Amino acid sequence: MSTTIKKIGVLTSGGDSPGMNAAIRAVVRACAYYNVECVGIYRGYQGMIEGDFKAMGPRDVKNIINKGGTILKTARSKEFMTPEGRKIAHDNLKASGVDSLVVIGGDGSFTGAEIFNEEFGFSVIGIPGTIDNDIFGTSHTLGYDTALNTVVEAIDKIRDTANSHNRLFFVEVMGRDAGHIALNAGIGAGAEEILIPEEAFGLDRLVDSLKKSKESGKTSSIVVVSEGDKIGKNVFELKDYVEENMPEYDVRVSVLGHMQRGGAPSCFDRVLASRLGVKAVESLLEGKSNYMVGLQYDKITLTPLEQAIKGQSEIDLELVKVSDIVSS
Amino acid sequence: MSTTIKKIGVLTSGGDSPGMNAAIRAVVRACAYYNVECVGIYRGYQGMIEGDFKAMGPRDVKNIINKGGTILKTARSKEFMTPEGRKIAHDNLKASGVDSLVVIGGDGSFTGAEIFNEEFGFSVIGIPGTIDNDIFGTSHTLGYDTALNTVVEAIDKIRDTANSHNRLFFVEVMGRDAGHIALNAGIGAGAEEILIPEEAFGLDRLVDSLKKSKESGKTSSIVVVSEGDKIGKNVFELKDYVEENMPEYDVRVSVLGHMQRGGAPSCFDRVLASRLGVKAVESLLEGKSNYMVGLQYDKITLTPLEQAIKGQSEIDLELVKVSDIVSS
Amino acid sequence: MSTTIKKIGVLTSGGDSPGMNAAIRAVVRACAYYNVECVGIYRGYQGMIEGDFKAMGPRDVKNIINKGGTILKTARSKEFMTPEGRKIAHDNLKASGVDSLVVIGGDGSFTGAEIFNEEFGFSVIGIPGTIDNDIFGTSHTLGYDTALNTVVEAIDKIRDTANSHNRLFFVEVMGRDAGHIALNAGIGAGAEEILIPEEAFGLDRLVDSLKKSKESGKTSSIVVVSEGDKIGKNVFELKDYVEENMPEYDVRVSVLGHMQRGGAPSCFDRVLASRLGVKAVESLLEGKSNYMVGLQYDKITLTPLEQAIKGQSEIDLELVKVSDIVSS
Amino acid sequence: MSTTIKKIGVLTSGGDSPGMNAAIRAVVRACAYYNVECVGIYRGYQGMIEGDFKAMGPRDVKNIINKGGTILKTARSKEFMTPEGRKIAHDNLKASGVDSLVVIGGDGSFTGAEIFNEEFGFSVIGIPGTIDNDIFGTSHTLGYDTALNTVVEAIDKIRDTANSHNRLFFVEVMGRDAGHIALNAGIGAGAEEILIPEEAFGLDRLVDSLKKSKESGKTSSIVVVSEGDKIGKNVFELKDYVEENMPEYDVRVSVLGHMQRGGAPSCFDRVLASRLGVKAVESLLEGKSNYMVGLQYDKITLTPLEQAIKGQSEIDLELVKVSDIVSS
Repeated sequence: MSTTIKKIGVLTSGGDSPGMNAAIRAVVRACAYYNVECVGIYRGYQGMIEGDFKAMGPRDVKNIINKGGTILKTARSKEFMTPEGRKIAHDNLKASGVDSLVVIGGDGSFTGAEIFNEEFGFSVIGIPGTIDNDIFGTSHTLGYDTALNTVVEAIDKIRDTANSHNRLFFVEVMGRDAGHIALNAGIGAGAEEILIPEEAFGLDRLVDSLKKSKESGKTSSIVVVSEGDKIGKNVFELKDYVEENMPEYDVRVSVLGHMQRGGAPSCFDRVLASRLGVKAVESLLEGKSNYMVGLQYDKITLTPLEQAIKGQSEIDLELVKVSDIVSS
Repeated sequence: MSTTIKKIGVLTSGGDSPGMNAAIRAVVRACAYYNVECVGIYRGYQGMIEGDFKAMGPRDVKNIINKGGTILKTARSKEFMTPEGRKIAHDNLKASGVDSLVVIGGDGSFTGAEIFNEEFGFSVIGIPGTIDNDIFGTSHTLGYDTALNTVVEAIDKIRDTANSHNRLFFVEVMGRDAGHIALNAGIGAGAEEILIPEEAFGLDRLVDSLKKSKESGKTSSIVVVSEGDKIGKNVFELKDYVEENMPEYDVRVSVLGHMQRGGAPSCFDRVLASRLGVKAVESLLEGKSNYMVGLQYDKITLTPLEQAIKGQSEIDLELVKVSDIVSS
Repeated sequence: MSTTIKKIGVLTSGGDSPGMNAAIRAVVRACAYYNVECVGIYRGYQGMIEGDFKAMGPRDVKNIINKGGTILKTARSKEFMTPEGRKIAHDNLKASGVDSLVVIGGDGSFTGAEIFNEEFGFSVIGIPGTIDNDIFGTSHTLGYDTALNTVVEAIDKIRDTANSHNRLFFVEVMGRDAGHIALNAGIGAGAEEILIPEEAFGLDRLVDSLKKSKESGKTSSIVVVSEGDKIGKNVFELKDYVEENMPEYDVRVSVLGHMQRGGAPSCFDRVLASRLGVKAVESLLEGKSNYMVGLQYDKITLTPLEQAIKGQSEIDLELVKVSDIVSS
Repeated sequence: MSTTIKKIGVLTSGGDSPGMNAAIRAVVRACAYYNVECVGIYRGYQGMIEGDFKAMGPRDVKNIINKGGTILKTARSKEFMTPEGRKIAHDNLKASGVDSLVVIGGDGSFTGAEIFNEEFGFSVIGIPGTIDNDIFGTSHTLGYDTALNTVVEAIDKIRDTANSHNRLFFVEVMGRDAGHIALNAGIGAGAEEILIPEEAFGLDRLVDSLKKSKESGKTSSIVVVSEGDKIGKNVFELKDYVEENMPEYDVRVSVLGHMQRGGAPSCFDRVLASRLGVKAVESLLEGKSNYMVGLQYDKITLTPLEQAIKGQSEIDLELVKVSDIVSS
């Protein structure tokens, strides 16, 4: 491949997700494979501004493919939102000879990359890393599959105690404004109901459904609630409402929280990270810029960053129906 | 063994814990081994009142040793707290030919067993089943070891994201009024601070300690807080206090919740359950009654139920010191 | 939907795989949802011949979505390979009013289904269930994703000890004649080399590669070997050859074995099983027969059974290259 | 504490085991706590001879408490078995100012430590680290509890497929000449038979027992075999013998292998490692030498190294009986 790319910087930005380390490893090793230099940038855009760089070779990324989090750390940078901040960042990159960037993160991170590209003509490729799966242009974001497994394993445990006590549990899961985690993990965990932001599901319908479920012989129930759900109540208010209307139920709440962001990545996320990391480097070397690499129809593809940012990652409505059927 | 015991009833009562199924299995199979009948009583004392019984043989308990929860289900029974309720329960047992009981549960369950023994001269043996490890007369209650592993695995995941973001996390764990889970899982998870009910630990000392920790180079921190901690604040108030006094820190809270009660039991809990279940049956057959079987100094022992209920399961102060040293 | 389908039989056949129970659950509940009867057939085609049937409703499949293995059990039936055996099987189905079949299994099971369809005009739909991912017409077979996670978790553990001792490990994984498990789990586990049946990889090249790897600073290595690898040697002979040619290496072998077939299914497999089970029932109700339901380009599709049996599930060559790059 | 100890060396030796890193961390941090220097010695005694040392402070051991293996690596050293080799090792320690040693390993490692102490009057404390639990003077060695969990989780998976197929599995587990792992994991996994070196268990008795088991209604069986079992046959010969004598059984073998040595340590092993590491340092500082720290009756104790090496860690015969009863 013949481009002018000589030194690639790689950073992780925004919320961390399992698989980011595997992606960093793939970027670093792809650089070595293609004989370009690689520089790790710590704490995302903030580290770019502070010049927190480190040259990275294949041995620097050994034994990280199975580690959660990100060895490059991540941060949110207010300074990078200003032209002055970005100027400093650019100067630092120039001074270090870095001529292109791989940005691993979510749409906020991609917006930063796009502006940076626009202002300085800097070559950038994005890798979608977030457990929320809310990025257009990829069927899976890095960490999403791992988070789904973390959630179903946690709910499997909660189910043990729910069954033993004939209880109803509301389990809140992450996902920001998207219901992907709730819908898939809800089906996977055998939830009786799944509340997602994409679907209006009134409180009365919920109570009706739970009553029907109880009549059909169910003695315990799990309701999975997406943190972004718009039913108008948080999960504790939901609990109160149901308890008032179904006094026969012993209702509990569990907010799974930040453990969903950690843990050893699943095999799927490790392989996806490896493929995306390699493709990101190859794309830069082919002279491409301002794209996100992603997985579409089982193939690694490129989507313009602008589309990735503005597009909507839709819920699969077939899944909503499957959920209704199998929870019967 | 020559006693008059012919039919043993077994029940689980109070909060469920991993290992209860393994204990039920051991009771049922020990009955078969010693040629006495065994009857499963559903939903604890409430099922005793409702006559919810089922004869159980070795095949009824196959493939449950590794399942969380309790196949006999558990419940809290207000009716059993009345003499009338207990009379009905006793009549039901008599009518079914059940002449002795194995009660798997915590101190509340043992209190019920003791009163029942007192009122009707009924032979009872208790097996300590609770994740809280707050029972006198046993170094380990059933489910405690499993819960510790569940907690450290969850905190390992939280640590991934805490490290990536340089964050401080307050993680609330179960344990009722006892700090066993917090102290042991806190050491196991490498927590920087552990707040337990047995130890006064002022807010100022906490902030001081966290500041010192930060100065020594720590960039992220985990503080494990027992749900029974008496620091005078709940875990969300703790967060607010620390954020006010350490504005440089990004603080998050995670309440691990009911997943701590479920999951496949650890090998330790499965073996302990097997030993306790066998010993409970053997003790009844030897004419013993009103005892709890437990693990003391690696041996299965008998402790009078009264002592098990009134005694205190103390925190090991050596561990508090070890925690201070290794979190440095 | 208006067909003449009134009673659907469901069976699992061939080697078991995680997710089969989730698929059974989905079939049973989809039947209930669409108001057709459902009959579970035990031990595959052998149970069909022996008339080992059981009517199944939604409550019969509760709490199985997260269980490995198959509650319907599975077996290989020689009798079903004879026209006489199939005649008996057909008579049994007729007598029970079963008018259509969902067969969960691999290509051997599908061949049986196809012949049965041909001989008796019986409506059949196949669901691909095998960890090997060697079925044409679906990007993923049920259990494959779970097996990948089981394998990488096992190799993660082996890596711990390999690193501590500076050892070389040959790890043999399942997959029959297909290298899918080896290739994907090998990338996921960060293997230095991956030997698959689809790629000739001479012994000399292996030794060369390991020597280069050692020179580049690697102190331990994992080589993942597919059980179907055609390098001409089994994994123990491989070990001997490498030890002879690289006496400086301490070489060990680990054959992961049947644990790869068990375990709680991953979220992916649970969701896939739910989708496939629902679609299988819907397809029968729509009058379709002799198809396999599968996942293609993220959508549930139908592939004629004949194609599914004869087609080849190809290795993705992009992955072979990715593996070369990231293992550098 | 007032001794002349100023600089403590720490090493891991022999086979690695989960918890070794947690012990290293505790030693390093206890040194910091008590204001003595700490030096990590790589690759056990071999690194001592090669002068492969590194000064270690609290930050060097961050985030290792939950990692399997040993960051100090381990090796077997032939050179250290010679007086010349030990002389060089001693000279290296002297030159580095190291005046005392913490040796984490098994009895082979302790023998080296004892000789070293004898020859040079060097202060040494041993920490028992091996999954085999075959060290006298401690109820648990580091890594044993983790290995038990690894084994039962693997057998849980094998059980899934054994149940689905009505198969008999021989599962070989580690333990060298001791049956601790086999006996405890066998009970924990609900094995039908457990073959350990400490108990003669003829082939005929095995077949008898399996036949009885089958008659009682068991359709699948797990037999756990210790690698050190003296039944006179290896696990594959066992399979052949049983197949010959019970042709109705479909028999399989699984050798769990080295994955038993790795993995994140259990909470128990992390806490034990922390306690032992702290106590090892405190003992040196109190002027003690030539002891092993261990866990006895729930307390941390000291046992003369000589006894730890010569003594026998006995199997608990109560467990053998419990196993007979609960496997019925």
